[in-house]
Amino acid sequence: MHFISENRLGDSVLERQFTLGEIPGILWTPTSASAPVPLILLGHPPLGLHTMYPRLLARARAAVTEGYAAATIENPWSGDRPRSADADQARADLRRALQAGEPVSAELVDRLILPLVDQAVPEWRATLDALLSVPAINGPVGYSGGVIALGVRLAVVEPRISAAVLFAGSFVPRTIVEEARQVTIPLHVLLQWDDEGNGRHQALDLFDAFGSREKALHANMGGHAGVPQHAGDEANRFFARHLR
Amino acid sequence: MHFISENRLGDSVLERQFTLGEIPGILWTPTSASAPVPLILLGHPPLGLHTMYPRLLARARAAVTEGYAAATIENPWSGDRPRSADADQARADLRRALQAGEPVSAELVDRLILPLVDQAVPEWRATLDALLSVPAINGPVGYSGGVIALGVRLAVVEPRISAAVLFAGSFVPRTIVEEARQVTIPLHVLLQWDDEGNGRHQALDLFDAFGSREKALHANMGGHAGVPQHAGDEANRFFARHLR
Repeated sequence: MHFISENRLGDSVLERQFTLGEIPGILWTPTSASAPVPLILLGHPPLGLHTMYPRLLARARAAVTEGYAAATIENPWSGDRPRSADADQARADLRRALQAGEPVSAELVDRLILPLVDQAVPEWRATLDALLSVPAINGPVGYSGGVIALGVRLAVVEPRISAAVLFAGSFVPRTIVEEARQVTIPLHVLLQWDDEGNGRHQALDLFDAFGSREKALHANMGGHAGVPQHAGDEANRFFARHLR
Repeated sequence: MHFISENRLGDSVLERQFTLGEIPGILWTPTSASAPVPLILLGHPPLGLHTMYPRLLARARAAVTEGYAAATIENPWSGDRPRSADADQARADLRRALQAGEPVSAELVDRLILPLVDQAVPEWRATLDALLSVPAINGPVGYSGGVIALGVRLAVVEPRISAAVLFAGSFVPRTIVEEARQVTIPLHVLLQWDDEGNGRHQALDLFDAFGSREKALHANMGGHAGVPQHAGDEANRFFARHLR
């Protein structure tokens, strides 16, 4: 991991851009922590780090204010990273289906999501290796998503993740619902009841499938981007219970 | 309303037993409030006030600590109140169905719940009339249930109730699901995902039916009595947002 810029945001947040191989990322840490802090990984949809930056910064500020470090990396084939012809094709097929008012087939969901998960999960794990070698950070580690299928796979394969906040706002391949049965860490799942991009019943089936003994579903009214402030506060309190 | 006993609980809570006609009830108020306070009505299942007292007192203490008054009344045909042959018959039929492992029919649900709602709602409204004439109390008023069908009907017919916390843990007649479409106040609905006494899909259908623009569903793992502490805290914060 190479830090390529360092920037103080006000009195309390240190923002560092980094690269891990070819993957760009950002690390936010408290400027004044007297001891190493827990870490929250910030997942985000594959719209590019530049596009997502304002929302990621808001989440990072909230995390740092609560005494965590926060970090994110660019998704595969997004932002300034090399494109994938298959991923571009799947996204074009999705746009076409949505514009035509057609249902999104399970086959298309697989093509959209599974390669992203397969590629991104090892990248997040390598990032975690690097982040946990930063002296300001020790753990425990939380994950806050992003593409929910990616959060599911990470929760299954990465034992250093102790708790996860997942957002039931993206397509879920059937195989990921099966993987969800292997998840055992505490989960806090946010669902927008009228999310236009996601089937409510699929989200409820996924929640039911999780093997975790402690899991909570918080459903609120409104569409994809309408998560109320208090729902974010509740997610923060979930991490406070599990990352201390 | 006649106060029949008065009892200080520690430094901060004044507990007063009262009767409203033949209906026994309990009012808890802060001993040290400098101005009239909002009120939370505490609904509870028809197991009798004596049986429910420890749990009601815990909820009342939490409410008073947050600066509210709290009050409850005995359910119809429960505790020391006169019995109803029809209600006794319906409860006996329920026990028989559950012991036989049979499904609880919609007809039995109607017999169990609808007479209770029809009888209890005017009693709660008369209690509210009386409570709002107590100088220590002004409003706004919240309802925290109890039998969810009773909370639904109260939310529809009683305009002085500003917000409700409902517990999706009891049977819901189909007509009540229809009434739920007329509810417009902010709602916070608790669901125990594996509640043995309640169909999850019925609870989700009821949540979907509520007409409220602001409604949240908080589902947690476990059975009927397994509501985690943090879920109670979140319900308290819901009232803090809506009763101030």
